[in-house]
Amino acid sequence: MMSDSASTGARELLYFEDLQVGRRFSSRTHQLDEAQILAFAGQFDPQPFHLDAEAAKRTFFQGLAASGWHTAAISMRLLVESAPIAGGVIGAGAEINWPKPTRPGAILHLESEVIELRPLRTRPDRGMVTMRSETINQAREIVQVLVSKLVVPRKVVPSE
Amino acid sequence: MMSDSASTGARELLYFEDLQVGRRFSSRTHQLDEAQILAFAGQFDPQPFHLDAEAAKRTFFQGLAASGWHTAAISMRLLVESAPIAGGVIGAGAEINWPKPTRPGAILHLESEVIELRPLRTRPDRGMVTMRSETINQAREIVQVLVSKLVVPRKVVPSE
Repeated sequence: MMSDSASTGARELLYFEDLQVGRRFSSRTHQLDEAQILAFAGQFDPQPFHLDAEAAKRTFFQGLAASGWHTAAISMRLLVESAPIAGGVIGAGAEINWPKPTRPGAILHLESEVIELRPLRTRPDRGMVTMRSETINQAREIVQVLVSKLVVPRKVVPSE
Repeated sequence: MMSDSASTGARELLYFEDLQVGRRFSSRTHQLDEAQILAFAGQFDPQPFHLDAEAAKRTFFQGLAASGWHTAAISMRLLVESAPIAGGVIGAGAEINWPKPTRPGAILHLESEVIELRPLRTRPDRGMVTMRSETINQAREIVQVLVSKLVVPRKVVPSE
């Protein structure tokens, strides 16, 4: 099984034909702190459990937690950096789950794997790649599972 | 069909028992500009089609577009403000699709509807609410469809 890593330095761009089911990508880590959590929540998800460590204790989360959309946004950055897809990482849609809260101090990284490759009959110049990405914290807990449908260009457009 | 609106000023908190399939919530509008798009993309999704209007012309998007996760984050803010759910808007997971790009100058609002209500056998103090939220621009185009599973507390915990 091949693996790419941000640390290899190699950034050969990958087209649809270059990808196989099982191909994996590992990201660098991102350390989350309370200031980042409060800044994102203040702008996009202003709820007590994302904004106020003291008030958060008396909520569902029992303490400060990052907005799920903040975890998603950080994960996108890690995906963009770790998966060198030609044309960029372009999602048509995704399923997202947050099995555990992301806490201040979390050190996150992303492990991604290609789980499906589908040529597009209507658009022979591109294919649809399904990527499953786990966002994992320093305790090896999965805090987010993202299954995204990515639009990836073909190197060679098949003739009719 | 009942409707809540940010403009009514009424913010009676809604418990699981207060919700019905078909209940709708409408948000205020949010106007997106190029500076917001660049700021979000620089932090979370640094790709040419989200960062550089000129370079974006030669990409899949054929012009500057907001990161899908930016549209998601704005939509979350609009949902939090428009759906006065007791305990807050807490998502366990979601499906998200972006049928059209979100462009600079977009005036976005959110239309949400409860599509399923499910009591949780293992957790009688809460229920799972499936909400479908459309993010709509000033041309009445749907730029995002979000179907989210929300954890909502019950007012009355049923006895065994």
